[in-house]
Amino acid sequence: MLNNKEWFTEFYPNFGTGFGLQIKSKLHEEKSPFQTIAIYETTHFGNLMTIDSIIMLSSRDNFMYHEMMSHPILFTHPNPKNIVIIGGGDCGTLKEVLKHPVDSVTQIDIDERVTRLSEIYFPELCTANHDKRASLLFQDGIRWMIEAPTNSVDVIIVDSTDPIGPAEGLFNQAFYSQCHRVLRDNGILVQQSESPILHQAITRDMRNAMQKAAFSEVLTITYPQPVYPSGWHSATLAGKKAPLKTFRRDDALLKSLQTQYYHFDLHQGLLTEPAFLQRAFS
Amino acid sequence: MLNNKEWFTEFYPNFGTGFGLQIKSKLHEEKSPFQTIAIYETTHFGNLMTIDSIIMLSSRDNFMYHEMMSHPILFTHPNPKNIVIIGGGDCGTLKEVLKHPVDSVTQIDIDERVTRLSEIYFPELCTANHDKRASLLFQDGIRWMIEAPTNSVDVIIVDSTDPIGPAEGLFNQAFYSQCHRVLRDNGILVQQSESPILHQAITRDMRNAMQKAAFSEVLTITYPQPVYPSGWHSATLAGKKAPLKTFRRDDALLKSLQTQYYHFDLHQGLLTEPAFLQRAFS
Repeated sequence: MLNNKEWFTEFYPNFGTGFGLQIKSKLHEEKSPFQTIAIYETTHFGNLMTIDSIIMLSSRDNFMYHEMMSHPILFTHPNPKNIVIIGGGDCGTLKEVLKHPVDSVTQIDIDERVTRLSEIYFPELCTANHDKRASLLFQDGIRWMIEAPTNSVDVIIVDSTDPIGPAEGLFNQAFYSQCHRVLRDNGILVQQSESPILHQAITRDMRNAMQKAAFSEVLTITYPQPVYPSGWHSATLAGKKAPLKTFRRDDALLKSLQTQYYHFDLHQGLLTEPAFLQRAFS
Repeated sequence: MLNNKEWFTEFYPNFGTGFGLQIKSKLHEEKSPFQTIAIYETTHFGNLMTIDSIIMLSSRDNFMYHEMMSHPILFTHPNPKNIVIIGGGDCGTLKEVLKHPVDSVTQIDIDERVTRLSEIYFPELCTANHDKRASLLFQDGIRWMIEAPTNSVDVIIVDSTDPIGPAEGLFNQAFYSQCHRVLRDNGILVQQSESPILHQAITRDMRNAMQKAAFSEVLTITYPQPVYPSGWHSATLAGKKAPLKTFRRDDALLKSLQTQYYHFDLHQGLLTEPAFLQRAFS
Protein backbone atom coordinates (compact mmCIF):
# COMPACT_ATOMS: atom_id res chain seq x y z
CA MET A 1 0.00 0.00 0.00
CA LEU A 2 1.18 3.47 -0.77
CA ASN A 3 0.90 6.96 0.56
CA ASN A 4 0.89 9.53 -2.18
CA LYS A 5 -1.00 12.71 -2.96
CA GLU A 6 -3.75 10.78 -4.74
CA TRP A 7 -4.62 8.52 -1.81
CA PHE A 8 -4.93 8.89 1.92
CA THR A 9 -4.04 5.43 3.19
CA GLU A 10 -4.30 4.31 6.79
CA PHE A 11 -2.31 1.26 7.82
CA TYR A 12 -3.15 -0.99 10.74
CA PRO A 13 0.18 -2.80 11.05
CA ASN A 14 -0.87 -4.75 14.13
CA PHE A 15 -3.80 -6.17 12.19
CA GLY A 16 -2.32 -6.64 8.72
CA THR A 17 -4.86 -4.45 6.97
CA GLY A 18 -5.04 -1.04 5.37
CA PHE A 19 -7.72 1.23 3.98
CA GLY A 20 -7.40 4.07 1.50
CA LEU A 21 -9.54 6.88 0.17
CA GLN A 22 -8.83 8.61 -3.13
CA ILE A 23 -8.14 12.30 -2.63
CA LYS A 24 -8.90 15.28 -4.86
CA SER A 25 -6.99 17.77 -2.70
CA LYS A 26 -5.83 18.62 0.80
CA LEU A 27 -8.10 21.46 1.92
CA HIS A 28 -6.39 22.28 5.21
CA GLU A 29 -3.73 21.14 7.66
CA GLU A 30 -2.72 22.61 10.99
CA LYS A 31 -0.93 21.65 14.16
CA SER A 32 -3.15 22.51 17.10
CA PRO A 33 -1.74 22.56 20.66
CA PHE A 34 -2.83 18.92 20.92
CA GLN A 35 -2.65 17.24 17.53
CA THR A 36 -2.29 17.64 13.78
CA ILE A 37 -5.65 18.07 12.06
CA ALA A 38 -5.99 17.68 8.29
CA ILE A 39 -8.99 18.06 5.98
CA TYR A 40 -9.09 16.46 2.54
CA GLU A 41 -11.60 16.50 -0.28
CA THR A 42 -12.06 12.90 -1.39
CA THR A 43 -13.29 11.74 -4.79
CA HIS A 44 -16.31 9.80 -3.46
CA PHE A 45 -16.65 10.24 0.31
CA GLY A 46 -17.01 14.01 0.54
CA ASN A 47 -14.71 15.73 3.02
CA LEU A 48 -12.38 13.75 5.26
CA MET A 49 -10.93 14.80 8.63
CA THR A 50 -7.83 13.12 9.97
CA ILE A 51 -6.12 13.67 13.33
CA ASP A 52 -2.47 12.66 13.60
CA SER A 53 -2.95 10.81 10.29
CA ILE A 54 -5.84 8.70 11.61
CA ILE A 55 -9.22 8.92 9.86
CA MET A 56 -11.82 10.63 12.06
CA LEU A 57 -14.82 10.99 9.76
CA SER A 58 -16.02 11.48 6.21
CA SER A 59 -19.07 13.40 5.02
CA ARG A 60 -20.50 10.27 3.43
CA ASP A 61 -20.60 7.71 6.22
CA ASN A 62 -20.34 9.54 9.58
CA PHE A 63 -24.10 9.28 10.13
CA MET A 64 -23.88 5.69 11.32
CA TYR A 65 -21.29 6.45 13.99
CA HIS A 66 -23.09 9.54 15.26
CA GLU A 67 -26.52 7.90 15.35
CA MET A 68 -25.24 4.80 17.14
CA MET A 69 -23.35 6.83 19.74
CA SER A 70 -26.51 8.70 20.68
CA HIS A 71 -29.88 7.05 20.00
CA PRO A 72 -29.34 3.60 21.56
CA ILE A 73 -28.15 5.04 24.90
CA LEU A 74 -30.75 7.81 24.96
CA PHE A 75 -33.59 5.33 24.37
CA THR A 76 -32.09 2.93 26.94
CA HIS A 77 -32.08 5.53 29.70
CA PRO A 78 -35.56 5.90 31.25
CA ASN A 79 -35.56 9.71 31.23
CA PRO A 80 -32.33 11.36 29.97
CA LYS A 81 -32.30 15.08 30.74
CA ASN A 82 -28.68 16.10 31.43
CA ILE A 83 -26.20 14.79 28.89
CA VAL A 84 -22.41 15.09 28.76
CA ILE A 85 -20.32 14.44 25.67
CA ILE A 86 -16.57 13.97 26.20
CA GLY A 87 -14.79 14.66 22.93
CA GLY A 88 -17.22 14.85 20.03
CA GLY A 89 -15.59 18.00 18.65
CA ASP A 90 -17.01 17.47 15.16
CA CYS A 91 -20.45 18.02 16.78
CA GLY A 92 -22.17 15.20 14.88
CA THR A 93 -23.09 13.36 18.09
CA LEU A 94 -24.29 16.61 19.67
CA LYS A 95 -26.65 17.17 16.74
CA GLU A 96 -28.17 13.68 17.17
CA VAL A 97 -28.52 14.04 20.97
CA LEU A 98 -30.39 17.32 20.53
CA LYS A 99 -33.06 15.50 18.51
CA HIS A 100 -34.21 14.17 21.91
CA PRO A 101 -36.17 16.18 24.52
CA VAL A 102 -33.15 16.68 26.80
CA ASP A 103 -32.66 19.68 29.08
CA SER A 104 -28.92 20.19 28.63
CA VAL A 105 -25.98 18.83 26.65
CA THR A 106 -22.48 19.78 27.79
CA GLN A 107 -19.77 18.91 25.29
CA ILE A 108 -16.16 18.94 26.49
CA ASP A 109 -13.53 18.58 23.76
CA ILE A 110 -9.91 19.38 24.56
CA ASP A 111 -9.28 20.87 21.11
CA GLU A 112 -11.40 23.81 19.99
CA ARG A 113 -9.83 23.64 16.53
CA VAL A 114 -11.64 20.37 15.76
CA THR A 115 -14.96 22.15 16.24
CA ARG A 116 -13.94 25.29 14.36
CA LEU A 117 -12.78 23.21 11.40
CA SER A 118 -15.92 21.08 11.53
CA GLU A 119 -18.00 24.27 11.33
CA ILE A 120 -16.18 25.07 8.07
CA TYR A 121 -15.80 21.63 6.45
CA PHE A 122 -18.70 19.65 8.00
CA PRO A 123 -21.32 22.40 8.47
CA GLU A 124 -24.15 19.83 8.26
CA LEU A 125 -22.92 18.38 11.59
CA CYS A 126 -22.86 21.77 13.32
CA THR A 127 -26.42 22.95 12.70
CA ALA A 128 -27.35 22.45 16.38
CA ASN A 129 -24.25 24.06 17.93
CA HIS A 130 -26.23 27.16 18.89
CA ASP A 131 -29.18 25.26 20.38
CA LYS A 132 -30.01 26.90 23.75
CA ARG A 133 -29.60 23.52 25.48
CA ALA A 134 -26.01 23.05 24.25
CA SER A 135 -22.81 24.20 26.00
CA LEU A 136 -19.56 23.70 24.13
CA LEU A 137 -16.52 23.69 26.44
CA PHE A 138 -12.94 23.34 25.25
CA GLN A 139 -10.93 21.78 28.07
CA ASP A 140 -9.62 18.47 29.37
CA GLY A 141 -12.54 16.06 29.71
CA ILE A 142 -10.72 13.96 32.33
CA ARG A 143 -10.22 17.04 34.53
CA TRP A 144 -13.82 18.15 33.91
CA MET A 145 -15.12 14.77 35.08
CA ILE A 146 -12.99 14.85 38.24
CA GLU A 147 -14.40 18.28 39.11
CA ALA A 148 -18.04 17.54 38.19
CA PRO A 149 -20.61 17.21 41.00
CA THR A 150 -21.63 13.73 42.15
CA ASN A 151 -25.00 12.42 40.86
CA SER A 152 -25.45 15.28 38.40
CA VAL A 153 -25.63 13.64 34.94
CA ASP A 154 -27.94 11.10 33.27
CA VAL A 155 -25.90 10.09 30.23
CA ILE A 156 -22.18 10.35 29.45
CA ILE A 157 -21.12 9.83 25.82
CA VAL A 158 -17.37 9.39 25.31
CA ASP A 159 -16.92 10.25 21.63
CA SER A 160 -13.14 10.20 21.64
CA THR A 161 -10.18 9.39 19.43
CA ASP A 162 -8.38 6.07 19.84
CA PRO A 163 -6.73 5.06 23.14
CA ILE A 164 -3.44 6.71 22.17
CA GLY A 165 -2.44 10.36 22.52
CA PRO A 166 -4.81 12.84 24.21
CA ALA A 167 -7.62 10.27 24.61
CA GLU A 168 -5.56 7.56 26.34
CA GLY A 169 -6.78 8.60 29.78
CA LEU A 170 -10.39 8.07 28.73
CA PHE A 171 -9.97 4.29 28.54
CA ASN A 172 -9.16 3.27 32.11
CA GLN A 173 -10.81 2.42 35.41
CA ALA A 174 -9.88 5.76 37.03
CA PHE A 175 -11.87 7.69 34.42
CA TYR A 176 -14.77 5.25 34.48
CA SER A 177 -14.93 5.53 38.29
CA GLN A 178 -15.28 9.29 37.97
CA CYS A 179 -18.04 8.81 35.37
CA HIS A 180 -19.77 6.37 37.73
CA ARG A 181 -19.63 8.97 40.54
CA VAL A 182 -20.94 11.79 38.34
CA LEU A 183 -23.82 9.74 36.90
CA ARG A 184 -27.15 9.61 38.71
CA ASP A 185 -28.36 6.22 39.95
CA ASN A 186 -29.90 5.16 36.65
CA GLY A 187 -27.14 6.80 34.63
CA ILE A 188 -25.47 5.20 31.61
CA LEU A 189 -22.08 5.66 29.96
CA VAL A 190 -21.31 4.87 26.32
CA GLN A 191 -17.90 4.95 24.66
CA GLN A 192 -16.72 4.13 21.14
CA SER A 193 -14.98 0.76 21.48
CA GLU A 194 -13.18 0.17 18.17
CA SER A 195 -13.56 -2.72 15.71
CA PRO A 196 -15.45 -5.86 16.81
CA ILE A 197 -13.18 -8.07 14.72
CA LEU A 198 -9.79 -6.33 15.04
CA HIS A 199 -9.79 -4.77 18.51
CA GLN A 200 -11.50 -7.33 20.72
CA ALA A 201 -8.69 -7.06 23.29
CA ILE A 202 -9.21 -3.28 23.61
CA THR A 203 -12.97 -3.71 23.95
CA ARG A 204 -12.59 -6.51 26.48
CA ASP A 205 -10.21 -4.39 28.59
CA MET A 206 -12.68 -1.48 28.44
CA ARG A 207 -15.54 -3.71 29.56
CA ASN A 208 -13.49 -5.14 32.42
CA ALA A 209 -12.41 -1.66 33.55
CA MET A 210 -16.02 -0.44 33.44
CA GLN A 211 -17.12 -3.34 35.62
CA LYS A 212 -14.23 -2.80 38.04
CA ALA A 213 -15.45 0.81 38.25
CA ALA A 214 -18.72 -0.63 39.66
CA PHE A 215 -20.90 -0.39 36.55
CA SER A 216 -23.42 -3.19 36.98
CA GLU A 217 -23.86 -4.15 33.31
CA VAL A 218 -22.06 -3.65 30.00
CA LEU A 219 -23.30 -4.13 26.45
CA THR A 220 -21.28 -3.81 23.23
CA ILE A 221 -23.26 -2.84 20.13
CA THR A 222 -21.82 -2.96 16.61
CA TYR A 223 -22.46 -0.96 13.44
CA PRO A 224 -20.88 -0.47 10.03
CA GLN A 225 -18.37 2.35 9.62
CA PRO A 226 -16.65 2.01 6.23
CA VAL A 227 -13.80 4.48 6.88
CA TYR A 228 -12.76 2.88 10.20
CA PRO A 229 -10.50 -0.19 10.48
CA SER A 230 -12.30 -3.29 9.14
CA GLY A 231 -15.31 -1.15 8.16
CA TRP A 232 -17.01 -2.28 11.34
CA HIS A 233 -17.11 -0.44 14.63
CA SER A 234 -18.63 -0.73 18.09
CA ALA A 235 -19.81 1.23 21.10
CA THR A 236 -19.90 -0.14 24.64
CA LEU A 237 -22.61 0.89 27.07
CA ALA A 238 -22.08 0.66 30.83
CA GLY A 239 -25.08 0.97 33.14
CA LYS A 240 -24.84 2.12 36.77
CA LYS A 241 -28.14 0.44 37.63
CA ALA A 242 -30.45 0.82 34.66
CA PRO A 243 -30.74 -2.39 32.64
CA LEU A 244 -29.19 -2.10 29.17
CA LYS A 245 -31.07 -4.87 27.38
CA THR A 246 -34.35 -2.99 27.29
CA PHE A 247 -35.25 0.44 25.96
CA ARG A 248 -38.14 2.90 25.68
CA ARG A 249 -39.78 1.07 22.83
CA ASP A 250 -42.72 3.42 22.36
CA ASP A 251 -40.43 6.44 22.08
CA ALA A 252 -38.00 4.65 19.76
CA LEU A 253 -40.91 3.73 17.49
CA LEU A 254 -41.88 7.37 17.04
CA LYS A 255 -41.45 8.33 13.42
CA SER A 256 -40.76 11.87 14.54
CA LEU A 257 -37.10 10.97 15.11
CA GLN A 258 -35.40 11.51 11.76
CA THR A 259 -32.51 9.07 11.31
CA GLN A 260 -30.70 7.57 8.32
CA TYR A 261 -29.50 4.32 9.94
CA TYR A 262 -30.88 3.79 13.47
CA HIS A 263 -34.35 2.34 13.85
CA PHE A 264 -36.37 0.46 16.46
CA ASP A 265 -35.89 -3.06 15.06
CA LEU A 266 -32.17 -2.47 14.61
CA HIS A 267 -31.91 -1.51 18.29
CA GLN A 268 -33.77 -4.68 19.28
CA GLY A 269 -31.25 -6.69 17.24
CA LEU A 270 -28.31 -5.17 19.14
CA LEU A 271 -29.48 -6.36 22.56
CA THR A 272 -27.88 -9.75 21.92
CA GLU A 273 -24.14 -9.81 21.22
CA PRO A 274 -23.16 -12.23 18.42
CA ALA A 275 -21.74 -15.52 19.69
CA PHE A 276 -18.21 -14.82 18.42
CA LEU A 277 -18.17 -11.58 20.44
CA GLN A 278 -19.64 -13.21 23.53
CA ARG A 279 -16.77 -15.69 23.37
CA ALA A 280 -14.19 -12.94 22.86
CA PHE A 281 -15.45 -11.04 25.91
CA SER A 282 -15.94 -14.00 28.23
CA MET B 1 -2.00 2.46 -2.59
CA LEU B 2 0.43 -0.13 -3.82
CA ASN B 3 0.48 -3.68 -5.04
CA ASN B 4 3.61 -5.48 -3.94
CA LYS B 5 4.47 -8.88 -2.60
CA GLU B 6 3.82 -7.80 0.99
CA TRP B 7 0.26 -6.62 0.40
CA PHE B 8 -2.70 -7.78 -1.60
CA THR B 9 -4.54 -4.56 -2.39
CA GLU B 10 -7.91 -4.32 -4.06
CA PHE B 11 -8.86 -1.00 -5.64
CA TYR B 12 -12.40 0.18 -6.25
CA PRO B 13 -11.67 2.97 -8.72
CA ASN B 14 -15.34 3.78 -9.29
CA PHE B 15 -15.76 4.37 -5.58
CA GLY B 16 -12.46 6.00 -4.64
CA THR B 17 -11.55 3.42 -2.02
CA GLY B 18 -9.12 0.56 -1.62
CA PHE B 19 -8.54 -2.22 0.88
CA GLY B 20 -5.38 -4.20 1.53
CA LEU B 21 -4.34 -7.28 3.45
CA GLN B 22 -0.78 -7.97 4.48
CA ILE B 23 0.53 -11.18 2.92
CA LYS B 24 3.00 -13.73 4.25
CA SER B 25 3.15 -15.71 1.02
CA LYS B 26 1.27 -16.75 -2.10
CA LEU B 27 0.31 -20.38 -1.51
CA HIS B 28 -1.14 -21.14 -4.94
CA GLU B 29 -2.17 -19.61 -8.24
CA GLU B 30 -3.78 -21.21 -11.27
CA LYS B 31 -5.73 -20.30 -14.36
CA SER B 32 -8.84 -22.45 -14.47
CA PRO B 33 -10.92 -22.68 -17.68
CA PHE B 34 -13.02 -19.82 -16.26
CA GLN B 35 -10.86 -17.55 -14.11
CA THR B 36 -7.57 -17.06 -12.28
CA ILE B 37 -7.73 -18.35 -8.72
CA ALA B 38 -5.06 -17.40 -6.16
CA ILE B 39 -4.59 -18.39 -2.53
CA TYR B 40 -2.50 -16.29 -0.13
CA GLU B 41 -1.49 -16.71 3.48
CA THR B 42 -2.16 -13.38 5.19
CA THR B 43 -0.52 -12.11 8.37
CA HIS B 44 -3.77 -11.71 10.36
CA PHE B 45 -6.75 -12.96 8.33
CA GLY B 46 -5.73 -16.56 7.75
CA ASN B 47 -5.93 -17.78 4.16
CA LEU B 48 -7.26 -15.55 1.40
CA MET B 49 -8.82 -16.63 -1.90
CA THR B 50 -8.95 -14.23 -4.83
CA ILE B 51 -10.56 -14.76 -8.24
CA ASP B 52 -9.33 -12.55 -11.10
CA SER B 53 -7.63 -10.41 -8.42
CA ILE B 54 -10.87 -9.80 -6.50
CA ILE B 55 -11.09 -10.90 -2.85
CA MET B 56 -13.50 -13.82 -2.40
CA LEU B 57 -13.02 -14.80 1.24
CA SER B 58 -10.63 -14.99 4.17
CA SER B 59 -10.51 -17.63 6.89
CA ARG B 60 -11.11 -15.00 9.54
CA ASP B 61 -14.29 -13.24 8.49
CA ASN B 62 -16.14 -15.45 5.97
CA PHE B 63 -18.53 -16.70 8.66
CA MET B 64 -20.67 -13.57 8.49
CA TYR B 65 -21.22 -13.82 4.74
CA HIS B 66 -21.99 -17.54 4.82
CA GLU B 67 -24.35 -17.31 7.78
CA MET B 68 -26.26 -14.37 6.33
CA MET B 69 -26.63 -16.02 2.92
CA SER B 70 -28.26 -19.07 4.52
CA HIS B 71 -29.98 -18.68 7.89
CA PRO B 72 -32.23 -15.64 7.22
CA ILE B 73 -33.74 -17.15 4.06
CA LEU B 74 -34.05 -20.64 5.54
CA PHE B 75 -35.89 -19.31 8.60
CA THR B 76 -38.06 -17.07 6.38
CA HIS B 77 -39.29 -19.98 4.24
CA PRO B 78 -42.09 -21.87 6.04
CA ASN B 79 -40.68 -25.33 5.32
CA PRO B 80 -37.50 -25.41 3.19
CA LYS B 81 -36.72 -28.93 2.00
CA ASN B 82 -35.11 -28.69 -1.46
CA ILE B 83 -32.36 -26.09 -1.68
CA VAL B 84 -30.29 -24.96 -4.67
CA ILE B 85 -27.04 -23.01 -4.38
CA ILE B 86 -25.80 -21.31 -7.57
CA GLY B 87 -22.07 -20.66 -7.18
CA GLY B 88 -20.93 -21.17 -3.61
CA GLY B 89 -17.89 -23.18 -4.69
CA ASP B 90 -16.01 -22.55 -1.44
CA CYS B 91 -18.78 -24.61 0.22
CA GLY B 92 -19.17 -22.29 3.23
CA THR B 93 -22.82 -21.58 2.44
CA LEU B 94 -23.48 -25.28 1.84
CA LYS B 95 -22.14 -26.08 5.30
CA GLU B 96 -24.50 -23.54 6.92
CA VAL B 97 -27.53 -24.73 4.91
CA LEU B 98 -26.91 -28.31 6.00
CA LYS B 99 -27.30 -27.24 9.64
CA HIS B 100 -31.04 -27.10 8.83
CA PRO B 101 -33.33 -30.15 8.47
CA VAL B 102 -33.46 -29.94 4.66
CA ASP B 103 -33.92 -32.95 2.37
CA SER B 104 -31.52 -31.94 -0.40
CA VAL B 105 -29.01 -29.26 -1.33
CA THR B 106 -27.84 -29.07 -4.93
CA GLN B 107 -24.84 -26.80 -5.45
CA ILE B 108 -23.99 -25.77 -9.00
CA ASP B 109 -20.68 -23.94 -9.42
CA ILE B 110 -19.22 -23.50 -12.89
CA ASP B 111 -15.64 -23.95 -11.66
CA GLU B 112 -14.73 -27.20 -9.88
CA ARG B 113 -11.28 -25.81 -9.09
CA VAL B 114 -12.77 -23.34 -6.58
CA THR B 115 -14.14 -26.26 -4.58
CA ARG B 116 -11.01 -28.39 -4.88
CA LEU B 117 -8.84 -25.49 -3.68
CA SER B 118 -11.29 -24.73 -0.87
CA GLU B 119 -10.99 -28.35 0.28
CA ILE B 120 -7.23 -27.79 0.59
CA TYR B 121 -7.02 -24.21 1.89
CA PHE B 122 -10.39 -23.77 3.66
CA PRO B 123 -11.06 -27.30 4.91
CA GLU B 124 -13.22 -25.96 7.77
CA LEU B 125 -15.78 -24.85 5.13
CA CYS B 126 -15.89 -28.24 3.43
CA THR B 127 -16.73 -30.50 6.36
CA ALA B 128 -20.27 -31.08 5.05
CA ASN B 129 -19.37 -31.72 1.40
CA HIS B 130 -19.98 -35.45 1.79
CA ASP B 131 -23.30 -35.08 3.61
CA LYS B 132 -25.77 -37.52 1.99
CA ARG B 133 -28.16 -34.61 1.32
CA ALA B 134 -25.58 -32.64 -0.69
CA SER B 135 -24.97 -32.86 -4.45
CA LEU B 136 -22.07 -30.87 -5.85
CA LEU B 137 -22.40 -30.21 -9.59
CA PHE B 138 -19.81 -28.34 -11.65
CA GLN B 139 -21.61 -26.75 -14.59
CA ASP B 140 -23.20 -23.50 -15.76
CA GLY B 141 -25.79 -22.43 -13.19
CA ILE B 142 -27.73 -20.37 -15.75
CA ARG B 143 -28.10 -23.41 -18.00
CA TRP B 144 -28.97 -25.61 -15.02
CA MET B 145 -31.77 -23.23 -14.03
CA ILE B 146 -33.20 -23.13 -17.57
CA GLU B 147 -33.34 -26.94 -17.62
CA ALA B 148 -34.66 -27.42 -14.07
CA PRO B 149 -38.28 -28.60 -13.62
CA THR B 150 -40.96 -26.02 -12.81
CA ASN B 151 -42.09 -25.79 -9.15
CA SER B 152 -39.33 -28.09 -7.91
CA VAL B 153 -37.28 -26.01 -5.44
CA ASP B 154 -38.03 -24.22 -2.15
CA VAL B 155 -34.99 -21.96 -1.79
CA ILE B 156 -32.43 -20.68 -4.33
CA ILE B 157 -29.25 -19.12 -2.95
CA VAL B 158 -27.15 -17.25 -5.53
CA ASP B 159 -23.71 -17.18 -3.91
CA SER B 160 -21.85 -15.75 -6.89
CA THR B 161 -18.95 -13.50 -7.77
CA ASP B 162 -19.60 -9.90 -8.79
CA PRO B 163 -21.75 -9.02 -11.82
CA ILE B 164 -18.75 -9.12 -14.16
CA GLY B 165 -17.22 -12.16 -15.88
CA PRO B 166 -18.79 -15.60 -15.46
CA ALA B 167 -21.43 -14.37 -12.99
CA GLU B 168 -22.77 -11.49 -15.10
CA GLY B 169 -25.72 -13.55 -16.33
CA LEU B 170 -26.87 -14.18 -12.77
CA PHE B 171 -27.89 -10.54 -12.26
CA ASN B 172 -30.68 -10.00 -14.81
CA GLN B 173 -34.42 -10.46 -15.27
CA ALA B 174 -34.02 -13.49 -17.57
CA PHE B 175 -32.23 -15.46 -14.86
CA TYR B 176 -34.61 -14.30 -12.12
CA SER B 177 -37.58 -15.36 -14.28
CA GLN B 178 -36.13 -18.86 -14.54
CA CYS B 179 -35.63 -18.92 -10.75
CA HIS B 180 -39.24 -17.79 -10.31
CA ARG B 181 -40.44 -20.64 -12.53
CA VAL B 182 -38.31 -23.26 -10.76
CA LEU B 183 -39.36 -22.17 -7.27
CA ARG B 184 -42.47 -23.62 -5.66
CA ASP B 185 -45.29 -21.21 -4.79
CA ASN B 186 -43.82 -20.17 -1.44
CA GLY B 187 -40.27 -20.26 -2.76
CA ILE B 188 -37.65 -17.62 -1.99
CA LEU B 189 -34.50 -16.49 -3.80
CA VAL B 190 -31.54 -14.78 -2.15
CA GLN B 191 -28.52 -13.27 -3.88
CA GLN B 192 -25.47 -11.42 -2.62
CA SER B 193 -26.09 -7.78 -3.53
CA GLU B 194 -22.81 -5.95 -2.90
CA SER B 195 -22.12 -2.99 -0.59
CA PRO B 196 -25.06 -1.03 0.86
CA ILE B 197 -23.09 2.22 0.72
CA LEU B 198 -21.04 1.79 -2.49
CA HIS B 199 -23.19 -0.28 -4.82
CA GLN B 200 -26.72 1.00 -4.27
CA ALA B 201 -27.27 1.27 -8.03
CA ILE B 202 -26.39 -2.42 -8.54
CA THR B 203 -28.68 -3.47 -5.68
CA ARG B 204 -31.50 -1.26 -6.92
CA ASP B 205 -31.21 -2.72 -10.44
CA MET B 206 -31.27 -6.25 -8.96
CA ARG B 207 -34.38 -5.48 -6.93
CA ASN B 208 -36.14 -3.98 -9.95
CA ALA B 209 -35.23 -6.98 -12.14
CA MET B 210 -36.48 -9.38 -9.44
CA GLN B 211 -39.80 -7.56 -9.30
CA LYS B 212 -40.09 -7.48 -13.10
CA ALA B 213 -39.53 -11.25 -12.93
CA ALA B 214 -42.77 -11.39 -10.90
CA PHE B 215 -41.32 -11.80 -7.42
CA SER B 216 -43.94 -10.25 -5.14
CA GLU B 217 -41.61 -8.83 -2.47
CA VAL B 218 -37.92 -7.99 -2.06
CA LEU B 219 -35.90 -7.32 1.09
CA THR B 220 -32.26 -6.26 1.31
CA ILE B 221 -30.44 -7.27 4.50
CA THR B 222 -26.99 -5.96 5.44
CA TYR B 223 -24.08 -7.41 7.40
CA PRO B 224 -20.42 -6.62 8.07
CA GLN B 225 -17.82 -8.20 5.78
CA PRO B 226 -14.41 -6.61 6.46
CA VAL B 227 -12.63 -7.95 3.35
CA TYR B 228 -15.31 -6.75 0.90
CA PRO B 229 -15.53 -3.18 -0.45
CA SER B 230 -16.51 -0.74 2.35
CA GLY B 231 -16.44 -3.61 4.88
CA TRP B 232 -20.19 -3.81 4.59
CA HIS B 233 -22.18 -6.15 2.39
CA SER B 234 -25.76 -7.10 1.63
CA ALA B 235 -28.01 -9.89 0.43
CA THR B 236 -31.34 -9.36 -1.30
CA LEU B 237 -34.24 -11.76 -0.79
CA ALA B 238 -37.02 -12.09 -3.35
CA GLY B 239 -40.22 -13.92 -2.40
CA LYS B 240 -42.53 -15.57 -4.92
CA LYS B 241 -45.45 -15.41 -2.50
CA ALA B 242 -44.10 -16.00 0.99
CA PRO B 243 -43.84 -12.82 3.03
CA LEU B 244 -40.22 -11.85 3.75
CA LYS B 245 -40.78 -9.67 6.82
CA THR B 246 -41.65 -12.57 9.08
CA PHE B 247 -39.76 -15.76 9.91
CA ARG B 248 -40.07 -19.00 11.89
CA ARG B 249 -39.30 -17.37 15.21
CA ASP B 250 -39.53 -20.51 17.35
CA ASP B 251 -37.07 -22.35 15.13
CA ALA B 252 -34.70 -19.37 14.89
CA LEU B 253 -34.67 -19.18 18.69
CA LEU B 254 -33.48 -22.76 19.02
CA LYS B 255 -30.07 -22.78 20.62
CA SER B 256 -29.31 -25.98 18.72
CA LEU B 257 -28.28 -23.92 15.68
CA GLN B 258 -24.60 -23.15 16.17
CA THR B 259 -23.69 -19.78 14.64
CA GLN B 260 -20.99 -17.19 15.26
CA TYR B 261 -22.86 -14.11 13.98
CA TYR B 262 -26.52 -14.80 13.11
CA HIS B 263 -29.06 -14.83 15.90
CA PHE B 264 -32.79 -14.36 16.34
CA ASP B 265 -32.75 -10.71 17.45
CA LEU B 266 -30.34 -9.80 14.66
CA HIS B 267 -32.77 -11.29 12.13
CA GLN B 268 -35.61 -9.27 13.62
CA GLY B 269 -33.51 -6.13 13.21
CA LEU B 270 -33.00 -6.80 9.49
CA LEU B 271 -36.69 -6.81 8.65
CA THR B 272 -36.65 -3.01 8.41
CA GLU B 273 -34.26 -1.46 5.89
CA PRO B 274 -32.45 1.65 7.24
CA ALA B 275 -33.96 4.92 6.00
CA PHE B 276 -30.96 5.81 3.83
CA LEU B 277 -31.36 2.48 1.98
CA GLN B 278 -35.11 2.83 1.65
CA ARG B 279 -34.46 6.19 -0.04
CA ALA B 280 -31.78 4.70 -2.31
CA PHE B 281 -34.11 1.93 -3.45
CA SER B 282 -37.27 3.98 -3.85
